[in-house]
Amino acid sequence: MRDIGVGVIGTGFMGKAHAMAYRAVAGIFPGNLTPVLQAVADIDGAAAEAAARQYGFQRALTNWHDLIADPAVEIVAITTPNTFHREMALAAIAAGKHVHCEKPLAPSVAEAREMMEASEAAKVVTQVGYNYIKNPLLSLARDMIAAGELGEITNFRGIHAEDFMCDPDVPYSWRLDPQGGGGAIADIGSHIIGLVRFLLGPITEVNADLATVVKSRPVAPGATERRLIEVDDIARLALRFARGCGGTIEANWAATGRKMQLGFELSGTKGALVFTQERLNELLYYKTGEDPRQSGFQRIEAGPQHPPYRNFCVAPGHQLGFNDLKTIEVADFLAAIDGGERRGPDFREAWEIQKVVDTAITSSRARAWKEVA
Amino acid sequence: MRDIGVGVIGTGFMGKAHAMAYRAVAGIFPGNLTPVLQAVADIDGAAAEAAARQYGFQRALTNWHDLIADPAVEIVAITTPNTFHREMALAAIAAGKHVHCEKPLAPSVAEAREMMEASEAAKVVTQVGYNYIKNPLLSLARDMIAAGELGEITNFRGIHAEDFMCDPDVPYSWRLDPQGGGGAIADIGSHIIGLVRFLLGPITEVNADLATVVKSRPVAPGATERRLIEVDDIARLALRFARGCGGTIEANWAATGRKMQLGFELSGTKGALVFTQERLNELLYYKTGEDPRQSGFQRIEAGPQHPPYRNFCVAPGHQLGFNDLKTIEVADFLAAIDGGERRGPDFREAWEIQKVVDTAITSSRARAWKEVA
Amino acid sequence: MRDIGVGVIGTGFMGKAHAMAYRAVAGIFPGNLTPVLQAVADIDGAAAEAAARQYGFQRALTNWHDLIADPAVEIVAITTPNTFHREMALAAIAAGKHVHCEKPLAPSVAEAREMMEASEAAKVVTQVGYNYIKNPLLSLARDMIAAGELGEITNFRGIHAEDFMCDPDVPYSWRLDPQGGGGAIADIGSHIIGLVRFLLGPITEVNADLATVVKSRPVAPGATERRLIEVDDIARLALRFARGCGGTIEANWAATGRKMQLGFELSGTKGALVFTQERLNELLYYKTGEDPRQSGFQRIEAGPQHPPYRNFCVAPGHQLGFNDLKTIEVADFLAAIDGGERRGPDFREAWEIQKVVDTAITSSRARAWKEVA
Amino acid sequence: MRDIGVGVIGTGFMGKAHAMAYRAVAGIFPGNLTPVLQAVADIDGAAAEAAARQYGFQRALTNWHDLIADPAVEIVAITTPNTFHREMALAAIAAGKHVHCEKPLAPSVAEAREMMEASEAAKVVTQVGYNYIKNPLLSLARDMIAAGELGEITNFRGIHAEDFMCDPDVPYSWRLDPQGGGGAIADIGSHIIGLVRFLLGPITEVNADLATVVKSRPVAPGATERRLIEVDDIARLALRFARGCGGTIEANWAATGRKMQLGFELSGTKGALVFTQERLNELLYYKTGEDPRQSGFQRIEAGPQHPPYRNFCVAPGHQLGFNDLKTIEVADFLAAIDGGERRGPDFREAWEIQKVVDTAITSSRARAWKEVA
Repeated sequence: MRDIGVGVIGTGFMGKAHAMAYRAVAGIFPGNLTPVLQAVADIDGAAAEAAARQYGFQRALTNWHDLIADPAVEIVAITTPNTFHREMALAAIAAGKHVHCEKPLAPSVAEAREMMEASEAAKVVTQVGYNYIKNPLLSLARDMIAAGELGEITNFRGIHAEDFMCDPDVPYSWRLDPQGGGGAIADIGSHIIGLVRFLLGPITEVNADLATVVKSRPVAPGATERRLIEVDDIARLALRFARGCGGTIEANWAATGRKMQLGFELSGTKGALVFTQERLNELLYYKTGEDPRQSGFQRIEAGPQHPPYRNFCVAPGHQLGFNDLKTIEVADFLAAIDGGERRGPDFREAWEIQKVVDTAITSSRARAWKEVA
Repeated sequence: MRDIGVGVIGTGFMGKAHAMAYRAVAGIFPGNLTPVLQAVADIDGAAAEAAARQYGFQRALTNWHDLIADPAVEIVAITTPNTFHREMALAAIAAGKHVHCEKPLAPSVAEAREMMEASEAAKVVTQVGYNYIKNPLLSLARDMIAAGELGEITNFRGIHAEDFMCDPDVPYSWRLDPQGGGGAIADIGSHIIGLVRFLLGPITEVNADLATVVKSRPVAPGATERRLIEVDDIARLALRFARGCGGTIEANWAATGRKMQLGFELSGTKGALVFTQERLNELLYYKTGEDPRQSGFQRIEAGPQHPPYRNFCVAPGHQLGFNDLKTIEVADFLAAIDGGERRGPDFREAWEIQKVVDTAITSSRARAWKEVA
Repeated sequence: MRDIGVGVIGTGFMGKAHAMAYRAVAGIFPGNLTPVLQAVADIDGAAAEAAARQYGFQRALTNWHDLIADPAVEIVAITTPNTFHREMALAAIAAGKHVHCEKPLAPSVAEAREMMEASEAAKVVTQVGYNYIKNPLLSLARDMIAAGELGEITNFRGIHAEDFMCDPDVPYSWRLDPQGGGGAIADIGSHIIGLVRFLLGPITEVNADLATVVKSRPVAPGATERRLIEVDDIARLALRFARGCGGTIEANWAATGRKMQLGFELSGTKGALVFTQERLNELLYYKTGEDPRQSGFQRIEAGPQHPPYRNFCVAPGHQLGFNDLKTIEVADFLAAIDGGERRGPDFREAWEIQKVVDTAITSSRARAWKEVA
Repeated sequence: MRDIGVGVIGTGFMGKAHAMAYRAVAGIFPGNLTPVLQAVADIDGAAAEAAARQYGFQRALTNWHDLIADPAVEIVAITTPNTFHREMALAAIAAGKHVHCEKPLAPSVAEAREMMEASEAAKVVTQVGYNYIKNPLLSLARDMIAAGELGEITNFRGIHAEDFMCDPDVPYSWRLDPQGGGGAIADIGSHIIGLVRFLLGPITEVNADLATVVKSRPVAPGATERRLIEVDDIARLALRFARGCGGTIEANWAATGRKMQLGFELSGTKGALVFTQERLNELLYYKTGEDPRQSGFQRIEAGPQHPPYRNFCVAPGHQLGFNDLKTIEVADFLAAIDGGERRGPDFREAWEIQKVVDTAITSSRARAWKEVA
């Protein structure tokens, strides 16, 4: 057992989620590596100070270069807007640090590839924040599929829909910059793409239709001047998988009323699974061949029989929350750094996801099927 | 008030549904026209006799020409496989009869158009059996959309999925004949296409991906010889609507575990609606602008405030069933014959639906967007 | 096969439901007896005339004695307020007619017993309108319990809650007359009592708490004068069953927001069942001993594998409605008249239900457990 | 801001939950007091050592007296079986420590009262682990009730059902010792009693029916010798509230298939609420007086608009888990120690809950209504 120093860049939504997870993980997943919160960096010095106080970081920095240069920092967690990911990650890799980066990995496939190649050349361990797939019930789903319990998979229908961009007065931001990597398809579409890859493996072809619902937005909060929006609010994808089946995905951040509708229905010749993050502690399972009088979709509730739920609670049905998924992500990362299984998703996997995102954008512009290169 | 003679061709699933609905309608929807079950025709004479006895038809026939020629028959209901629809409908129209035809109207757009034109030239009233849209809650949905209560519609995601063709030993039949009009897209896809047209109006473009999941089937029940299947088991459509928004549809008769998953989620700038035929007496409604502490999707239960539910029951929450929807369809048809509103769907609307089906097939072959002609 | 004449007394909610069911039954349940709608009686002659026209009764009467005296009438259906049930039923029995009576059978146990004894002495067939238990999924539930598939039953929690009496301006009516048999416990409580007896058999002891929520109501619709209410709006019962287990029932007609919450959760040593009439085509089933990773409550959807669903529709998941349950009730009654199984509930069973209702009222007054006599 | 030393007695399910919550709280709820994990005590020294390592306690002890005597420990958290609570709590209070005790507070009302009186005399702050009521949606429910948004409350139906004692081979343990305070009514019934008191205030009368479903259990894990069970597996309570309405509660630890069915339906003259811990991030709300075409129960999803959800996540719908509720409990306790609002439940409230538990046991033995003393 030894301590391992952690530095977090960024103090927003995800910066805090990382800080909480690194603080919590050792108590929940006892392992050889115990994270020590060494440094937090934010260009807003007051924010960095506040985060340091709140989460117990030993140092607050305004320059992320200092954080990476800090010899006590072995893990660099990058939670800034994704246009900064490449520069920060390459610097951290160059310094021999393990890198935990928020998703999407980068605004473009080229950048993601560069980051992936650098990390592999440097033999550092990487982790990307596709936290939803850390759900114990999704590990169960993946195991069932891999074990053939669902037979041959015949169809996948996935969605990630939220309503946080519905309001036309939500102002312009980096999320809406086409150089930042696309709109809903990149921001939340990458989650459902990552999820389906986790379950079913590679996507080979994409036929996408990307739509901008809110045509312009204020240039800044409260501004009357508006700026035309070029990225998508809704992305509708038809997919072909390497394993032979097809499917669809919808990514939609203008989905009125939906807060976290990340889910899927997946059919196979021996069974079907239905999931939504709206009820993340439930997985619906239909099994063919049962007594027809009594068969139906059964509601599996998460419990200690679904690793690593037991690390959080020994009693079934008590429910995990969002932050717990982040803690599992950190635990997996630490185990990989410690030489254990690399459960990912790492930079390579994030690059694969980014290729699908890019193919969707290309396909939509061409109004045609495109192969995932 | 006067009697009106009805003749039903076919005694299968839909033949019986028609007979039950024509028997029931006068008691539930008192109107000027009272159906009298004059004749039922089936090439299987014993089946015709049995149906006549069971439902109270005055005559059982083996030759449908005789049914159409019967002067006591004013309404001809066609419930045979759809390859026969054209010949029967044209004969009935030529004889000046009103025609109630099961869906899909015909195996091809050309035939559907011929039937539509003949019916309009002859000024007979027509009705096509897209019964699910007769649900009082879908009338409510349509009214809400038309009244602007959902704002501008931004997205539609529809599905019609069942599992009755999952089993690879379900034998070849007319439903699987490509000359019969296509597979899942025609058989059940037409339902969800009709439903979205009912709610949102014309579809202008389609980009479809049709897949055959079960590659071969027994040539006949129990046969060991198998025949290659050319039609689709799963159809995935991206859509553009004349009103400006886009959407998707999945039609899938190999959807493991699903019995009647005909449904949609529809978003607008002021609200959203969610429906599934699996719970046909419920409609979920999200309304923007409510107190954020207390807002959410609300579950509207069908009741007498949703016409014509009251005709069936004066108390809310008592629930309508499938056969009740068919009775509403017949009531609408009789009202139209009596000179009232033509609520349809009539042959013209069924032709429009068929155009979308055909466009989907063409689009999938071309792997490209296609305009609905 | 022969015709059997039917006379219906009353043209309200239930009068219409009976007329529709007797009209529909022969087409759905072919049997030896074909109902012919001979006569309908209502003290309001115009209502009787209208019902006769609408449902096809051959005669409209204002005096129910004439209906019973009519030699063409073999079945007398009584759908009036329950204070009239006794006199009408005894007259019909005396005339040798089979009697179909709405629930509750009578305002008191004494009257119910007199009716039961008269019917048994006269050897006529009787049927009481506890229609909800005619649900195919409840027959499945009963069969599973009887076959031991749920093991030893350990607990029952039942409810019948609606909101139709919530409004304090709903006026006084016969339903609120204590001589009419009690409030919610009699009117809707009798449904859930009948349902649990159908599933689990006799109730031996009751400990009830009856509450009047709306203390006074207008003496008539729109009246300003108000009358004190003596009967219960909410009844809460603890129960002991002859089979050894215990349970609870709530009957509540002031249940804000609930339209038809008739349901239960029932546990046994080998499984559990959950049902609500709000989703009458679904039954939830938990089976012990399954793979713990994958077990959970499974949602059984009604289909042709659940008799007599197939009589209505050959395809699963298409859903039955309330009026279909009434049709099954009539079919069961006709089958019993024809010498088949007496599935009931008959007057004897309705008397047993009434005893539990009366025991609840007695228990609540005494604030003590009472045996069901 | 200052540090505050925490000592935890016990390392089981709840010991770990406390350790995790005290570790996590400062990062999530920045406040004046920052917990420092000073000591953990367990008679099993290895368990104490392991917990110390895992959660970062500075000392592992085998004697809880040493923990209480430790001047660095200002908060004593008691998570042992409840027969030990009294002795430990009194010692901690005598030493002037603030006490966080797991529920139920004590095996009897007398002991609970002694503990409450000692704590109030010593003016220490106390907290009892009824964690489920810390759910932000239950605070919303309480606020809505208090603000009159539901009108006058007319009915409450509550449940706490789990299946962990279903198996007759679950061995005898302290939970089954009648001197330990009763069975399901004490162990889980106290949760739903605490919840309803939180929402609706004092209970004045109880009429209970307690049943033992599993009559005997192995004297120890794997033993063939069995011991008769005296405590209840199922408790069914009728209740009267000081505010005037009535209700029922079921506590059931032999509820086949249920993992965490802690919930209620609560009706008022202006609305209704439905909740279950099985979906702890949802609250169903029905509001009277809405447009009848569109009204229904609406599903409120937890979000940052429901304090203190925002402390965990700024985005709605991301979901809290069980351990988060424990963290809120600790945050409330720290705020009270710091001189803020005493949100409880404290020893006084736990004593009140215990009185209801005891009254239920007394009532069931007497088979009669009993006043809560």
